[in-house]
Amino acid sequence: MKINYPNPSIQTKPHRDAHVQSHGMIFEHALNLANEYYYNRNLAVIYKKPTPIRIVKVDYPSRNKARITEGYYQTPSTTDYNGIYKGRYLDYEAKETNNLSFSFKHIFPHQIEHLERVHKHGGLAFIIIFFKKVNQVFIMDILAFQDLLAEAKAGGKQSISLEQFQTLGKQVTLGFTPTMDYLKAVDELYHLV
Amino acid sequence: MKINYPNPSIQTKPHRDAHVQSHGMIFEHALNLANEYYYNRNLAVIYKKPTPIRIVKVDYPSRNKARITEGYYQTPSTTDYNGIYKGRYLDYEAKETNNLSFSFKHIFPHQIEHLERVHKHGGLAFIIIFFKKVNQVFIMDILAFQDLLAEAKAGGKQSISLEQFQTLGKQVTLGFTPTMDYLKAVDELYHLV
Repeated sequence: MKINYPNPSIQTKPHRDAHVQSHGMIFEHALNLANEYYYNRNLAVIYKKPTPIRIVKVDYPSRNKARITEGYYQTPSTTDYNGIYKGRYLDYEAKETNNLSFSFKHIFPHQIEHLERVHKHGGLAFIIIFFKKVNQVFIMDILAFQDLLAEAKAGGKQSISLEQFQTLGKQVTLGFTPTMDYLKAVDELYHLV
Repeated sequence: MKINYPNPSIQTKPHRDAHVQSHGMIFEHALNLANEYYYNRNLAVIYKKPTPIRIVKVDYPSRNKARITEGYYQTPSTTDYNGIYKGRYLDYEAKETNNLSFSFKHIFPHQIEHLERVHKHGGLAFIIIFFKKVNQVFIMDILAFQDLLAEAKAGGKQSISLEQFQTLGKQVTLGFTPTMDYLKAVDELYHLV
């Protein structure tokens, strides 16, 4: 008998942060839970970097308390997540899409450059994409991504299809513990034992 | 003839951020410049993580613009800096002191735990301390730091002296390009070639 459990990874409550609503952070929250799981099991140390904020005005209602009264979200200079796994430096950018293909325009050129750098220095560098419509998550190495991007720049397709992720990337298993076992996909993609 | 050039690393203008004043970020700025130098020379990819901000209120004066009108600085859950160097994951916490010894109370227990974790996973984990009075910077591996901390907890000295940094750590050369060649000290401390 097949029981259709609701998928907790995608239905988890969003983080209580005013920023949450605008950036579709349910996927992010699921990633954070996965990283918490990996940390607690001593499998990896991976964190999301805080969103950079440009602070314009700060009030000091009391000596030791600073209240920011004017600030703006900034474009991150690198990627969302990094850390260490199996002795390797690991770095990735997480995105989600409503479509059945992932458009190159959703990743900033400086983030691609950052991931290329990480790869050149011997790190594991990839993107992780959540396809909402089909409730599927994939990872793809920066080199495969770069090849497709080069084709796009030469006039080819401006996005990466779900099929291409299936062929060139690795699918991430969604479940309960962890919510998304993306490091299993990392093991497969990079042949880590 | 010895020319006493002013040391630019310590006299650099602080970052233009309201947070700067309260946290003595001149040292931080010098570190950022060093990391920029390493990045431009393709020697390492190391970044400071943004300061985490708890956002309470956001205004949307226009559709695409979000203005944070109430927010508070948060205690970082990890360390200030991480990245990749010579294929290794690298992670450190940067502190400065006005004294000639560094008190253990200036580093949060969860940051020490984080560095211990990084070490266990095969990363390079250390602290970097700027002694303002003598204009000297040292790095010390988390294991050496832990040993001294264990002594402190057993009733020993509650701080690490400059002499201990000289003996157990490595001194960082201050200069122009880069402002602080701390990765040279990392090479020495970890015997990297």
